[in-house]
Formats: sequence, C-alpha cells, structure tokens
Amino acid sequence: MPKDANFRQLTDRLVEFRDTRDWRQFHSLKNLMLSLNLEASELLELAQWRDDAQIESAIEDPDFRDRLGEECADVLLYLLLICERAGIDLGQEADAKIIRNGEKYPVEISRGNSRKYTDL
Amino acid sequence: MPKDANFRQLTDRLVEFRDTRDWRQFHSLKNLMLSLNLEASELLELAQWRDDAQIESAIEDPDFRDRLGEECADVLLYLLLICERAGIDLGQEADAKIIRNGEKYPVEISRGNSRKYTDL
Amino acid sequence: MPKDANFRQLTDRLVEFRDTRDWRQFHSLKNLMLSLNLEASELLELAQWRDDAQIESAIEDPDFRDRLGEECADVLLYLLLICERAGIDLGQEADAKIIRNGEKYPVEISRGNSRKYTDL
Amino acid sequence: MPKDANFRQLTDRLVEFRDTRDWRQFHSLKNLMLSLNLEASELLELAQWRDDAQIESAIEDPDFRDRLGEECADVLLYLLLICERAGIDLGQEADAKIIRNGEKYPVEISRGNSRKYTDL
Repeated sequence: MPKDANFRQLTDRLVEFRDTRDWRQFHSLKNLMLSLNLEASELLELAQWRDDAQIESAIEDPDFRDRLGEECADVLLYLLLICERAGIDLGQEADAKIIRNGEKYPVEISRGNSRKYTDL
Repeated sequence: MPKDANFRQLTDRLVEFRDTRDWRQFHSLKNLMLSLNLEASELLELAQWRDDAQIESAIEDPDFRDRLGEECADVLLYLLLICERAGIDLGQEADAKIIRNGEKYPVEISRGNSRKYTDL
Repeated sequence: MPKDANFRQLTDRLVEFRDTRDWRQFHSLKNLMLSLNLEASELLELAQWRDDAQIESAIEDPDFRDRLGEECADVLLYLLLICERAGIDLGQEADAKIIRNGEKYPVEISRGNSRKYTDL
Repeated sequence: MPKDANFRQLTDRLVEFRDTRDWRQFHSLKNLMLSLNLEASELLELAQWRDDAQIESAIEDPDFRDRLGEECADVLLYLLLICERAGIDLGQEADAKIIRNGEKYPVEISRGNSRKYTDL
C-alpha cells in the first residue's frame, strides 16, 4: 500500500477481514467503542512511569517506535470499524473538525497558550 | 476535501494549524497520548447507560451521528499528531496490522468466534 | 484485616510499601492519575466482547470473580495513593458525594429513569 | 461520617441511594465498568496540558483539590457498586493485593527502580 493510503482503501480491507471471519455479529457499536478505549489505553501504557524527556528519547529506539506504531494502528482500525458501522466519513469529519477548531481558536488569541477555548 | 482524503493531507493541515498557533511546545508525546485517551473516553461516553440495541437505534438520529463523528475525528486528530511527532506512517502501520491480524486469526479457526488469538 | 477495613489502614500499609521501596519519587500525581486509568482499563477489558448477560453469568465463575476483584483492588490502590499525595480524605469525599448526588437526583423525579441530572 | 469511614458503611449508603431510585436495573456490571472508566478519565483530565510540576503546584489551590477529591469519589463510588453487584469484598481484595505486590516486588531488588516486576 502506498504512503498516501486513504481511509476508504483501509476500510475496504478491514471489512473484508471482518466478513470472511463472520465477525460483524460481535461488532456492535458499543463493543467497538469499548475496544477502541482498550487500545487507546495500551497506547498510553507506553508512557507509564516515563516523563516527557524519557518518552522523547525512547522514540529513538526502533523497538519502542514499532510498539507505538502498532498501538496507533490498533486505535485507527477500531475508528474505521466504528465509522463503517455508523455510516460516518472519517476523513470528512476530521477535515471539518480542523476547520471548526480554527474558528474556536483564532490565531491572534490562542497563539502560544494552551487554554481551552472556553477559557480564552 | 474529497472523500478519499488521505493521512498525509490531513497531517499537513494539522501541522499548519498547530504551528501557526505555536502549540508544538505543548505537544509532548506524553501529553498527546494522554489527550487521545480523553477523546476516546468522550467517544465511549456516547454509549453510557445505553445497551447495544439503543445505540444501534440512536445512530439513526442525525444529532447522535454528528456527535459520534466529531468524537471519532478528535481521536483521529490526536493519532495523526502522535504519528507526526514520532515519525510513524500511520497508513502503513494500519495496513501492516491488518496483514498481521490475518496471520494471527486464520479464517478456518477464527470464523464465527470472538476468542482472542492466544485462546484459539 | 477485618471486613470493615478502612481507608486509613489501607493507606498506611500502602505508604509503608511505597516508602520501603523508595518509590515516592516515581509517584507524581500525573503518573498516579495515568496509572489509575490503565488499571481502570484492565478492569474494563473483562467486559470486552461480552454482553450484559454473559458478564452476569461470568461472575459465577470463581476465576473471573478473582480477576475482577484484583482489578478493582488495583484501581483502589491508585486512588488511595493519589489521595495521600494530595491530602484528600477519600472516605469523606465519597460520603459528601453521595449527599450531593441525592440533591441532584431527587427521588420523585429520578426514580426509574437513567437520565443525567442536567436532562431531568 | 468519621474519618475512618469504611467500605461497608459507604456501600450501605450507596445501595440505599440506588434502590430508592430504582436504578439497579441500569447497573449491569458492564455499564458500571464502563462508567468507572469515564470517571477515571475525568480524573485524568485534570492532568491534561499540565506537567508534573504544574500539577503539584495546582494541588495547593483549594478549587483544584476539590475537583480532584470529587473525581476520586466518583471513581470510588463505581468501584463500590461493582463490588456490591459481584459479591466482592473490596477492602479484603486491596489488602491481599498489597501482600501480593510485596512478593512480586521484593524490597532488595525493587528499591529505587520503577521497572515492572516482569523486567526485574
């Protein structure tokens, strides 16, 4: 798969994977949302007992980066499965969210500060 | 953005969003991993006190689907920010993970059952 | 320890455990809050791919109940460590919260429905 | 409630709260485990965009400590509800876990290092 792989191609492959195993029956939205949280937690586990600097340096270690990449992939696969079940176009949603975030956080007042938009 | 939006385009837009606000300084990998978990949890909150059937029927409600789409987008945006910071090609990782999952869950023995591969 | 073990006794034992190992240095509040979330997620993992009825019946299995009990304990231990670090009296907070919940959810209007108090 | 409030007293009050509202019907173990995770996440949100030092200093702020105390209480209440449903004695489990942790992490080899016992 080329570097510019897109959501549709990945979703097609995931659906094929799921359906040849007859797993759609287990993939209620609730179960998928729960499983996505478990994968997000496995991603977070890579940060346990490490401070910012330790993680930034761990990322130079190929083993650590492989594990991080794999956990990121696991989260993405559940995102795609959820969107497929719910009829959501993930790329379009992400695009729209970047635009909305741009409106919530105007450059002039949010530049260089991390406050939530409700506190700006 | 067209329906086949890809990871690279979204990442480019996110990085531009981040850098015009000078926010890279707040985006340590640890903070991004933590924030991704908070967004995953907001997604899960849509399932709270609802059983499978109630969620499947909620998905017919445009408001609910909009909220679900927005939460999915939030998770994806943090995934992309993490991968950009860590030098990870998310599309490639996801593609590789589908292939590995295919090896861990051969069709013949995993068809129609939800057991973890370690229990097959 | 008797069945009516209380927060103070458990906290004392935990602090002794931590300090004989010189682990307080790792126990920043941020790390403890993160670790508590990882343990909460391990608890949730026991519900993965199981529906309500399957979990209710799994609870009859002593092995499953042991694992559930252990995950609950892990969450509690991090709660106690957080409260110890932050000078919070957990029993008092829980007691106060039950009272506040009683005010937010008056019996007459919340009886038999699961809506959030903001929607009552 | 005195400072040495114990699990049994709190559980009794919680059960009374729940049953006068006829809420047991919503409290499947799966729903309680999911809700506990949402509360753990609200606790973690207090650490978002703050580094260790900022959280340690935030804890001097009575408002912040109140919010932290309330989120800890929310997590505890769900723990108690889960244990009540599953017939688990939380105090006893926590006590047993401290003992097991003492065996997994002997003082001599774990003193001053944060490695997981599987890596010791």
